[in-house]
Amino acid sequence: MTYCVALRMERGLVFMSDTRTNAGVDNISSYRKMFTWSDADAVVTILTAGNLATTQAVVSLLDERRQAGDDRRPALLAHASMFQVARHVGAVLREVIAASAPGGAGAEAAFSANLILGGQVRGGAPRLFLVYPEGNFIEAGEDTPFLQIGETKYGRPILLRAFDAGMGFEAAVKLLLLSFDSTIKANLSVGLPLDLAFYERDSLTPGPTRRIAADDPYFAAVSEGWGKALRSAVDSLPDFVL
Amino acid sequence: MTYCVALRMERGLVFMSDTRTNAGVDNISSYRKMFTWSDADAVVTILTAGNLATTQAVVSLLDERRQAGDDRRPALLAHASMFQVARHVGAVLREVIAASAPGGAGAEAAFSANLILGGQVRGGAPRLFLVYPEGNFIEAGEDTPFLQIGETKYGRPILLRAFDAGMGFEAAVKLLLLSFDSTIKANLSVGLPLDLAFYERDSLTPGPTRRIAADDPYFAAVSEGWGKALRSAVDSLPDFVL
Repeated sequence: MTYCVALRMERGLVFMSDTRTNAGVDNISSYRKMFTWSDADAVVTILTAGNLATTQAVVSLLDERRQAGDDRRPALLAHASMFQVARHVGAVLREVIAASAPGGAGAEAAFSANLILGGQVRGGAPRLFLVYPEGNFIEAGEDTPFLQIGETKYGRPILLRAFDAGMGFEAAVKLLLLSFDSTIKANLSVGLPLDLAFYERDSLTPGPTRRIAADDPYFAAVSEGWGKALRSAVDSLPDFVL
Repeated sequence: MTYCVALRMERGLVFMSDTRTNAGVDNISSYRKMFTWSDADAVVTILTAGNLATTQAVVSLLDERRQAGDDRRPALLAHASMFQVARHVGAVLREVIAASAPGGAGAEAAFSANLILGGQVRGGAPRLFLVYPEGNFIEAGEDTPFLQIGETKYGRPILLRAFDAGMGFEAAVKLLLLSFDSTIKANLSVGLPLDLAFYERDSLTPGPTRRIAADDPYFAAVSEGWGKALRSAVDSLPDFVL
Protein backbone atom coordinates (compact mmCIF):
# COMPACT_ATOMS: atom_id res chain seq x y z
CA MET A 1 0.00 0.00 0.00
CA THR A 2 0.95 3.65 0.04
CA TYR A 3 -0.38 6.94 1.30
CA CYS A 4 0.05 10.22 -0.56
CA VAL A 5 -1.73 13.55 -0.08
CA ALA A 6 -1.55 16.85 -1.92
CA LEU A 7 -3.07 20.13 -0.71
CA ARG A 8 -4.30 22.96 -2.93
CA MET A 9 -3.74 26.09 -0.86
CA GLU A 10 -3.95 29.82 -1.38
CA ARG A 11 -0.19 30.05 -0.91
CA GLY A 12 0.55 27.19 -3.31
CA LEU A 13 0.74 23.39 -3.23
CA VAL A 14 2.01 20.96 -0.58
CA PHE A 15 2.81 17.30 -1.28
CA MET A 16 3.50 14.44 1.11
CA SER A 17 4.13 10.74 0.40
CA ASP A 18 5.31 7.72 2.34
CA THR A 19 8.05 5.43 1.00
CA ARG A 20 6.94 1.91 1.88
CA THR A 21 6.21 -0.67 -0.79
CA ASN A 22 5.26 -4.25 -0.14
CA ALA A 23 4.61 -7.53 -1.89
CA GLY A 24 2.95 -9.33 0.99
CA VAL A 25 3.69 -8.36 4.58
CA ASP A 26 6.97 -10.29 4.50
CA ASN A 27 8.54 -8.37 1.66
CA ILE A 28 8.73 -4.65 2.28
CA SER A 29 11.06 -2.09 0.75
CA SER A 30 11.52 1.64 0.70
CA TYR A 31 11.06 3.57 -2.57
CA ARG A 32 10.58 7.21 -3.32
CA LYS A 33 7.04 7.99 -4.57
CA MET A 34 7.47 11.72 -5.21
CA PHE A 35 9.03 13.07 -8.41
CA THR A 36 9.49 16.64 -9.64
CA TRP A 37 10.41 18.05 -13.06
CA SER A 38 11.01 21.73 -13.68
CA ASP A 39 12.44 24.30 -16.04
CA ALA A 40 12.02 28.04 -16.44
CA ASP A 41 8.38 27.76 -17.56
CA ALA A 42 6.91 24.83 -15.63
CA VAL A 43 7.08 22.89 -12.37
CA VAL A 44 5.41 19.45 -12.20
CA THR A 45 5.29 17.11 -9.20
CA ILE A 46 3.87 13.58 -9.28
CA LEU A 47 2.98 11.28 -6.38
CA THR A 48 2.47 7.59 -7.14
CA ALA A 49 0.43 4.73 -5.67
CA GLY A 50 -0.06 1.23 -7.00
CA ASN A 51 2.06 -1.35 -8.79
CA LEU A 52 5.70 -0.30 -8.44
CA ALA A 53 6.78 -1.63 -11.84
CA THR A 54 4.02 0.47 -13.41
CA THR A 55 4.81 3.67 -11.55
CA GLN A 56 8.57 3.38 -12.13
CA ALA A 57 7.97 2.82 -15.85
CA VAL A 58 5.68 5.87 -15.98
CA VAL A 59 8.30 8.05 -14.29
CA SER A 60 11.06 6.81 -16.62
CA LEU A 61 8.94 7.45 -19.70
CA LEU A 62 8.06 10.96 -18.49
CA ASP A 63 11.80 11.54 -17.96
CA GLU A 64 12.93 10.25 -21.31
CA ARG A 65 10.32 11.45 -23.77
CA ARG A 66 11.41 14.41 -25.87
CA GLN A 67 9.51 16.27 -28.56
CA ALA A 68 12.50 15.94 -30.91
CA GLY A 69 15.54 13.66 -30.70
CA ASP A 70 17.97 16.47 -29.84
CA ASP A 71 15.61 18.27 -27.47
CA ARG A 72 17.00 18.59 -23.94
CA ARG A 73 13.62 19.49 -22.43
CA PRO A 74 11.28 16.62 -21.44
CA ALA A 75 8.08 16.75 -23.48
CA LEU A 76 6.25 16.77 -20.15
CA LEU A 77 7.37 20.38 -19.54
CA ALA A 78 6.65 21.63 -23.05
CA HIS A 79 2.87 21.88 -22.65
CA ALA A 80 0.92 25.14 -22.67
CA SER A 81 -1.23 24.29 -19.61
CA MET A 82 -1.46 21.95 -16.61
CA PHE A 83 -4.51 20.39 -18.28
CA GLN A 84 -2.31 19.33 -21.21
CA VAL A 85 0.31 18.02 -18.76
CA ALA A 86 -2.40 15.89 -17.10
CA ARG A 87 -3.49 14.50 -20.49
CA HIS A 88 0.13 13.61 -21.25
CA VAL A 89 0.63 11.88 -17.89
CA GLY A 90 -2.71 10.07 -18.15
CA ALA A 91 -1.84 8.76 -21.62
CA VAL A 92 1.53 7.44 -20.42
CA LEU A 93 -0.05 5.76 -17.39
CA ARG A 94 -2.71 4.03 -19.48
CA GLU A 95 -0.13 2.93 -22.05
CA VAL A 96 2.14 1.35 -19.41
CA ILE A 97 -0.74 -0.54 -17.78
CA ALA A 98 -2.00 -1.77 -21.14
CA ALA A 99 1.48 -2.98 -22.11
CA SER A 100 1.82 -5.00 -18.89
CA ALA A 101 -1.66 -6.49 -19.14
CA PRO A 102 -2.39 -7.82 -22.62
CA GLY A 103 -5.01 -10.02 -20.97
CA GLY A 104 -7.43 -7.09 -20.80
CA ALA A 105 -9.52 -5.61 -18.01
CA GLY A 106 -9.20 -8.49 -15.53
CA ALA A 107 -5.42 -8.60 -15.79
CA GLU A 108 -5.14 -4.82 -15.63
CA ALA A 109 -6.11 -4.65 -11.96
CA ALA A 110 -2.81 -6.22 -10.88
CA PHE A 111 -0.78 -3.61 -12.78
CA SER A 112 -2.93 -0.65 -11.85
CA ALA A 113 -1.77 2.65 -10.35
CA ASN A 114 -3.09 6.09 -9.44
CA LEU A 115 -1.17 9.34 -9.56
CA ILE A 116 -1.51 12.77 -8.04
CA LEU A 117 -0.18 15.46 -10.34
CA GLY A 118 0.32 19.07 -9.34
CA GLY A 119 2.20 22.10 -10.54
CA GLN A 120 2.08 25.27 -12.55
CA VAL A 121 2.81 26.22 -16.16
CA ARG A 122 3.72 29.85 -16.90
CA GLY A 123 0.59 31.83 -17.70
CA GLY A 124 -1.72 29.55 -15.69
CA ALA A 125 -2.59 28.98 -12.04
CA PRO A 126 -1.24 26.13 -9.85
CA ARG A 127 -3.46 23.07 -10.40
CA LEU A 128 -3.82 19.66 -8.81
CA PHE A 129 -5.14 16.46 -10.44
CA LEU A 130 -5.82 12.85 -9.54
CA VAL A 131 -5.01 10.64 -12.55
CA TYR A 132 -6.81 7.28 -12.84
CA PRO A 133 -5.36 4.12 -14.39
CA GLU A 134 -7.70 4.64 -17.36
CA GLY A 135 -5.81 7.86 -18.09
CA ASN A 136 -8.62 10.26 -17.25
CA PHE A 137 -8.43 12.58 -14.26
CA ILE A 138 -10.25 14.88 -11.84
CA GLU A 139 -9.09 18.23 -10.50
CA ALA A 140 -9.09 19.50 -6.92
CA GLY A 141 -11.19 22.63 -6.46
CA GLU A 142 -12.41 24.98 -3.75
CA ASP A 143 -14.92 22.49 -2.38
CA THR A 144 -12.43 19.63 -2.28
CA PRO A 145 -9.06 21.29 -1.79
CA PHE A 146 -7.02 18.11 -1.20
CA LEU A 147 -6.45 14.80 -2.95
CA GLN A 148 -5.39 11.44 -1.52
CA ILE A 149 -4.27 8.15 -3.08
CA GLY A 150 -3.46 4.75 -1.55
CA GLU A 151 -4.69 4.01 1.97
CA THR A 152 -6.88 7.10 2.20
CA LYS A 153 -9.43 6.31 4.91
CA TYR A 154 -7.62 6.44 8.26
CA GLY A 155 -6.14 9.86 7.55
CA ARG A 156 -9.19 11.47 5.99
CA PRO A 157 -11.29 12.59 9.00
CA ILE A 158 -8.62 14.95 10.36
CA LEU A 159 -8.22 16.59 6.94
CA LEU A 160 -11.98 16.91 6.43
CA ARG A 161 -12.37 18.51 9.84
CA ALA A 162 -9.35 20.76 10.17
CA PHE A 163 -7.85 21.58 6.75
CA ASP A 164 -8.47 25.03 5.36
CA ALA A 165 -6.91 26.24 2.11
CA GLY A 166 -6.19 29.62 3.69
CA MET A 167 -3.97 28.30 6.49
CA GLY A 168 -0.19 28.62 6.36
CA PHE A 169 2.21 25.98 5.04
CA GLU A 170 3.52 25.47 8.60
CA ALA A 171 0.10 24.49 10.00
CA ALA A 172 -0.70 22.44 6.90
CA VAL A 173 2.39 20.27 7.39
CA LYS A 174 1.31 19.63 10.96
CA LEU A 175 -2.10 18.41 9.71
CA LEU A 176 -0.46 16.24 7.07
CA LEU A 177 1.77 14.63 9.70
CA LEU A 178 -1.28 13.90 11.89
CA SER A 179 -3.05 12.36 8.89
CA PHE A 180 0.02 10.21 8.11
CA ASP A 181 0.50 9.29 11.77
CA SER A 182 -3.08 7.93 12.01
CA THR A 183 -2.51 5.92 8.83
CA ILE A 184 0.90 4.55 9.86
CA LYS A 185 -0.51 3.47 13.23
CA ALA A 186 -3.33 1.53 11.54
CA ASN A 187 -1.77 0.08 8.36
CA LEU A 188 1.60 -1.68 8.38
CA SER A 189 2.01 -1.12 4.65
CA VAL A 190 2.35 2.65 5.07
CA GLY A 191 5.66 3.64 6.66
CA LEU A 192 8.33 6.21 7.32
CA PRO A 193 10.34 7.99 6.02
CA LEU A 194 8.00 10.57 4.49
CA ASP A 195 8.78 12.94 1.62
CA LEU A 196 7.53 16.50 1.78
CA ALA A 197 7.61 19.15 -0.93
CA PHE A 198 6.25 22.67 -1.29
CA TYR A 199 5.39 24.74 -4.32
CA GLU A 200 4.95 28.47 -3.79
CA ARG A 201 2.30 29.99 -6.09
CA ASP A 202 3.74 31.79 -9.16
CA SER A 203 7.33 31.02 -8.16
CA LEU A 204 7.80 28.63 -11.11
CA THR A 205 10.63 27.09 -9.08
CA PRO A 206 10.40 23.90 -6.99
CA GLY A 207 10.04 24.86 -3.33
CA PRO A 208 11.89 23.36 -0.40
CA THR A 209 11.74 19.62 0.22
CA ARG A 210 12.27 17.54 3.34
CA ARG A 211 12.63 13.86 4.17
CA ILE A 212 11.04 13.04 7.53
CA ALA A 213 12.70 9.95 8.99
CA ALA A 214 11.70 7.80 11.97
CA ASP A 215 14.01 9.80 14.26
CA ASP A 216 12.72 13.22 13.15
CA PRO A 217 12.21 15.27 16.33
CA TYR A 218 9.33 17.33 14.92
CA PHE A 219 7.40 14.24 13.82
CA ALA A 220 8.01 12.65 17.22
CA ALA A 221 6.76 15.79 18.99
CA VAL A 222 3.58 15.91 16.89
CA SER A 223 2.91 12.18 17.17
CA GLU A 224 3.46 12.09 20.93
CA GLY A 225 1.70 15.37 21.61
CA TRP A 226 -1.31 14.32 19.58
CA GLY A 227 -2.44 11.56 21.94
CA LYS A 228 -2.56 14.01 24.81
CA ALA A 229 -4.09 16.84 22.77
CA LEU A 230 -6.75 14.50 21.43
CA ARG A 231 -7.70 13.27 24.91
CA SER A 232 -7.96 16.89 26.09
CA ALA A 233 -10.18 17.67 23.11
CA VAL A 234 -12.42 14.69 23.94
CA ASP A 235 -12.52 15.75 27.60
CA SER A 236 -13.61 19.25 26.60
CA LEU A 237 -16.87 17.86 25.17
CA PRO A 238 -19.79 17.09 27.47
CA ASP A 239 -20.05 13.47 28.68
CA PHE A 240 -23.04 11.34 27.74
CA VAL A 241 -25.66 11.13 30.48
CA LEU A 242 -26.67 7.53 31.08
CA MET B 1 -22.26 -0.71 4.21
CA THR B 2 -22.58 -0.55 7.98
CA TYR B 3 -20.57 0.48 11.00
CA CYS B 4 -20.72 -1.34 14.34
CA VAL B 5 -18.40 -1.15 17.35
CA ALA B 6 -18.32 -2.97 20.68
CA LEU B 7 -16.14 -2.04 23.63
CA ARG B 8 -14.82 -4.43 26.28
CA MET B 9 -14.55 -2.33 29.43
CA GLU B 10 -13.83 -2.90 33.09
CA ARG B 11 -17.38 -1.86 33.89
CA GLY B 12 -18.93 -4.10 31.22
CA LEU B 13 -19.71 -3.96 27.49
CA VAL B 14 -20.92 -1.13 25.26
CA PHE B 15 -22.41 -1.67 21.78
CA MET B 16 -23.17 0.81 19.02
CA SER B 17 -24.48 0.24 15.50
CA ASP B 18 -25.81 2.37 12.66
CA THR B 19 -29.03 1.47 10.84
CA ARG B 20 -28.39 2.20 7.18
CA THR B 21 -28.51 -0.53 4.57
CA ASN B 22 -28.05 -0.01 0.87
CA ALA B 23 -28.20 -1.82 -2.43
CA GLY B 24 -26.40 0.79 -4.51
CA VAL B 25 -26.44 4.46 -3.53
CA ASP B 26 -29.97 4.90 -4.92
CA ASN B 27 -31.62 2.30 -2.71
CA ILE B 28 -31.12 2.93 0.98
CA SER B 29 -33.21 1.76 3.90
CA SER B 30 -33.09 1.74 7.66
CA TYR B 31 -32.83 -1.56 9.55
CA ARG B 32 -31.90 -2.40 13.08
CA LYS B 33 -28.52 -4.20 13.32
CA MET B 34 -28.43 -4.78 17.08
CA PHE B 35 -30.24 -7.73 18.73
CA THR B 36 -30.31 -8.88 22.33
CA TRP B 37 -31.49 -12.15 23.92
CA SER B 38 -31.58 -12.71 27.65
CA ASP B 39 -32.94 -14.83 30.45
CA ALA B 40 -31.98 -15.29 34.09
CA ASP B 41 -28.65 -16.95 33.26
CA ALA B 42 -27.38 -15.27 30.12
CA VAL B 43 -27.37 -12.02 28.17
CA VAL B 44 -26.27 -12.08 24.52
CA THR B 45 -26.06 -9.10 22.14
CA ILE B 46 -25.25 -9.38 18.42
CA LEU B 47 -24.31 -6.64 15.94
CA THR B 48 -24.52 -7.45 12.24
CA ALA B 49 -22.76 -6.29 9.08
CA GLY B 50 -23.05 -7.66 5.57
CA ASN B 51 -25.79 -9.09 3.37
CA LEU B 52 -29.12 -8.16 4.98
CA ALA B 53 -30.91 -11.36 3.91
CA THR B 54 -28.13 -13.36 5.56
CA THR B 55 -28.10 -11.40 8.83
CA GLN B 56 -31.91 -11.40 9.12
CA ALA B 57 -31.98 -15.15 8.55
CA VAL B 58 -29.28 -15.66 11.20
CA VAL B 59 -31.22 -13.60 13.73
CA SER B 60 -34.47 -15.46 12.99
CA LEU B 61 -32.78 -18.85 13.35
CA LEU B 62 -31.18 -17.80 16.65
CA ASP B 63 -34.64 -16.70 17.81
CA GLU B 64 -36.48 -19.84 16.75
CA ARG B 65 -34.12 -22.69 17.58
CA ARG B 66 -35.03 -24.58 20.71
CA GLN B 67 -33.29 -27.55 22.29
CA ALA B 68 -36.60 -29.37 22.47
CA GLY B 69 -39.90 -28.68 20.70
CA ASP B 70 -41.72 -27.48 23.83
CA ASP B 71 -38.74 -25.53 25.21
CA ARG B 72 -39.51 -21.86 25.72
CA ARG B 73 -35.84 -20.90 26.04
CA PRO B 74 -33.87 -20.27 22.82
CA ALA B 75 -31.04 -22.79 22.48
CA LEU B 76 -28.72 -19.77 22.12
CA LEU B 77 -29.16 -19.03 25.83
CA ALA B 78 -28.79 -22.61 27.02
CA HIS B 79 -25.01 -22.80 26.66
CA ALA B 80 -22.58 -23.15 29.57
CA SER B 81 -20.16 -20.47 28.34
CA MET B 82 -19.83 -17.53 25.95
CA PHE B 83 -17.38 -19.63 23.95
CA GLN B 84 -20.14 -22.17 23.31
CA VAL B 85 -22.53 -19.33 22.38
CA ALA B 86 -19.97 -18.10 19.83
CA ARG B 87 -19.65 -21.60 18.34
CA HIS B 88 -23.45 -21.79 18.06
CA VAL B 89 -23.69 -18.37 16.35
CA GLY B 90 -20.76 -19.14 14.04
CA ALA B 91 -22.34 -22.41 12.95
CA VAL B 92 -25.67 -20.71 12.17
CA LEU B 93 -23.92 -17.93 10.19
CA ARG B 94 -21.92 -20.42 8.10
CA GLU B 95 -25.03 -22.52 7.48
CA VAL B 96 -27.08 -19.54 6.24
CA ILE B 97 -24.33 -18.37 3.88
CA ALA B 98 -23.80 -21.87 2.53
CA ALA B 99 -27.55 -22.29 1.91
CA SER B 100 -27.71 -19.03 -0.08
CA ALA B 101 -24.60 -19.81 -2.13
CA PRO B 102 -24.67 -23.33 -3.52
CA GLY B 103 -22.22 -22.09 -6.16
CA GLY B 104 -19.35 -22.30 -3.68
CA ALA B 105 -16.64 -19.91 -2.58
CA GLY B 106 -17.04 -17.38 -5.40
CA ALA B 107 -20.77 -17.04 -4.87
CA GLU B 108 -20.40 -16.88 -1.10
CA ALA B 109 -18.85 -13.41 -1.14
CA ALA B 110 -22.15 -11.82 -2.16
CA PHE B 111 -24.01 -13.41 0.76
CA SER B 112 -21.29 -12.86 3.32
CA ALA B 113 -21.66 -11.24 6.74
CA ASN B 114 -19.69 -10.56 9.92
CA LEU B 115 -21.06 -10.41 13.43
CA ILE B 116 -19.95 -8.98 16.73
CA LEU B 117 -21.17 -11.07 19.64
CA GLY B 118 -20.92 -10.03 23.28
CA GLY B 119 -22.45 -10.94 26.58
CA GLN B 120 -22.13 -12.99 29.71
CA VAL B 121 -23.24 -16.44 30.84
CA ARG B 122 -23.66 -17.05 34.57
CA GLY B 123 -20.41 -18.34 36.03
CA GLY B 124 -18.21 -16.70 33.38
CA ALA B 125 -16.90 -13.22 32.62
CA PRO B 126 -18.35 -10.84 30.00
CA ARG B 127 -16.76 -11.69 26.64
CA LEU B 128 -16.71 -10.15 23.18
CA PHE B 129 -16.18 -11.96 19.85
CA LEU B 130 -15.96 -11.13 16.16
CA VAL B 131 -17.56 -13.96 14.15
CA TYR B 132 -16.38 -14.49 10.55
CA PRO B 133 -18.53 -15.79 7.68
CA GLU B 134 -16.63 -19.09 7.87
CA GLY B 135 -18.08 -19.55 11.37
CA ASN B 136 -14.81 -19.16 13.28
CA PHE B 137 -14.18 -16.18 15.54
CA ILE B 138 -11.67 -14.10 17.49
CA GLU B 139 -12.06 -12.62 20.96
CA ALA B 140 -11.31 -9.09 22.16
CA GLY B 141 -8.71 -8.99 24.93
CA GLU B 142 -6.73 -6.54 27.00
CA ASP B 143 -4.43 -5.53 24.14
CA THR B 144 -7.31 -5.03 21.70
CA PRO B 145 -10.27 -4.03 23.84
CA PHE B 146 -12.67 -3.10 21.02
CA LEU B 147 -14.03 -4.74 17.87
CA GLN B 148 -15.37 -3.12 14.71
CA ILE B 149 -17.23 -4.46 11.66
CA GLY B 150 -18.34 -2.82 8.40
CA GLU B 151 -16.72 0.49 7.42
CA THR B 152 -14.05 0.35 10.13
CA LYS B 153 -11.27 2.63 8.90
CA TYR B 154 -12.50 6.22 9.25
CA GLY B 155 -13.52 5.74 12.87
CA ARG B 156 -10.53 3.69 14.01
CA PRO B 157 -7.83 6.34 14.73
CA ILE B 158 -9.85 8.08 17.45
CA LEU B 159 -10.51 4.76 19.20
CA LEU B 160 -6.86 3.68 18.94
CA ARG B 161 -5.71 6.97 20.41
CA ALA B 162 -8.24 7.74 23.09
CA PHE B 163 -10.10 4.59 24.19
CA ASP B 164 -9.16 3.08 27.51
CA ALA B 165 -10.98 0.10 29.02
CA GLY B 166 -10.91 1.77 32.45
CA MET B 167 -12.85 4.89 31.43
CA GLY B 168 -16.52 5.34 32.36
CA PHE B 169 -19.47 4.42 30.14
CA GLU B 170 -20.29 8.14 29.80
CA ALA B 171 -16.89 9.01 28.27
CA ALA B 172 -16.89 5.82 26.16
CA VAL B 173 -20.17 6.80 24.50
CA LYS B 174 -18.68 10.19 23.63
CA LEU B 175 -15.75 8.42 21.91
CA LEU B 176 -18.11 6.09 20.07
CA LEU B 177 -20.13 9.03 18.79
CA LEU B 178 -16.94 10.73 17.56
CA SER B 179 -15.92 7.52 15.80
CA PHE B 180 -19.38 7.24 14.19
CA ASP B 181 -19.42 10.94 13.29
CA SER B 182 -16.11 10.63 11.38
CA THR B 183 -17.48 7.59 9.53
CA ILE B 184 -20.85 9.14 8.70
CA LYS B 185 -19.14 12.27 7.34
CA ALA B 186 -16.95 10.17 5.02
CA ASN B 187 -19.19 7.27 3.90
CA LEU B 188 -22.75 7.82 2.68
CA SER B 189 -23.65 4.20 3.36
CA VAL B 190 -23.33 4.65 7.13
CA GLY B 191 -26.14 6.71 8.62
CA LEU B 192 -28.25 7.76 11.56
CA PRO B 193 -30.13 6.77 13.67
CA LEU B 194 -27.64 4.88 15.86
CA ASP B 195 -28.48 2.15 18.37
CA LEU B 196 -26.65 2.09 21.68
CA ALA B 197 -26.74 -0.61 24.37
CA PHE B 198 -24.91 -1.19 27.64
CA TYR B 199 -24.20 -4.32 29.59
CA GLU B 200 -23.09 -3.90 33.20
CA ARG B 201 -20.59 -6.60 34.32
CA ASP B 202 -22.19 -9.42 36.37
CA SER B 203 -25.67 -7.87 36.18
CA LEU B 204 -26.97 -10.71 33.93
CA THR B 205 -29.66 -8.25 32.83
CA PRO B 206 -29.61 -6.21 29.60
CA GLY B 207 -28.55 -2.66 30.42
CA PRO B 208 -30.14 0.56 29.19
CA THR B 209 -30.51 1.17 25.46
CA ARG B 210 -30.86 4.36 23.45
CA ARG B 211 -31.69 5.27 19.86
CA ILE B 212 -29.77 8.34 18.73
CA ALA B 213 -31.63 10.06 15.91
CA ALA B 214 -30.54 12.86 13.59
CA ASP B 215 -32.13 15.46 15.87
CA ASP B 216 -30.49 14.15 19.06
CA PRO B 217 -29.19 17.21 20.95
CA TYR B 218 -26.25 15.37 22.55
CA PHE B 219 -25.04 13.98 19.22
CA ALA B 220 -25.37 17.46 17.67
CA ALA B 221 -23.37 18.99 20.54
CA VAL B 222 -20.59 16.41 20.21
CA SER B 223 -20.46 16.62 16.42
CA GLU B 224 -20.45 20.43 16.35
CA GLY B 225 -18.12 20.81 19.31
CA TRP B 226 -15.65 18.33 17.83
CA GLY B 227 -14.62 20.50 14.88
CA LYS B 228 -13.68 23.32 17.23
CA ALA B 229 -12.04 21.03 19.82
CA LEU B 230 -10.01 19.30 17.11
CA ARG B 231 -8.76 22.59 15.69
CA SER B 232 -7.73 23.72 19.19
CA ALA B 233 -5.91 20.41 19.67
CA VAL B 234 -4.07 20.90 16.38
CA ASP B 235 -3.24 24.48 17.33
CA SER B 236 -1.78 23.30 20.65
CA LEU B 237 0.96 21.39 18.80
CA PRO B 238 4.06 23.21 17.54
CA ASP B 239 3.94 24.39 13.90
CA PHE B 240 6.40 22.98 11.37
CA VAL B 241 9.35 25.29 10.70
CA LEU B 242 9.88 25.72 6.98
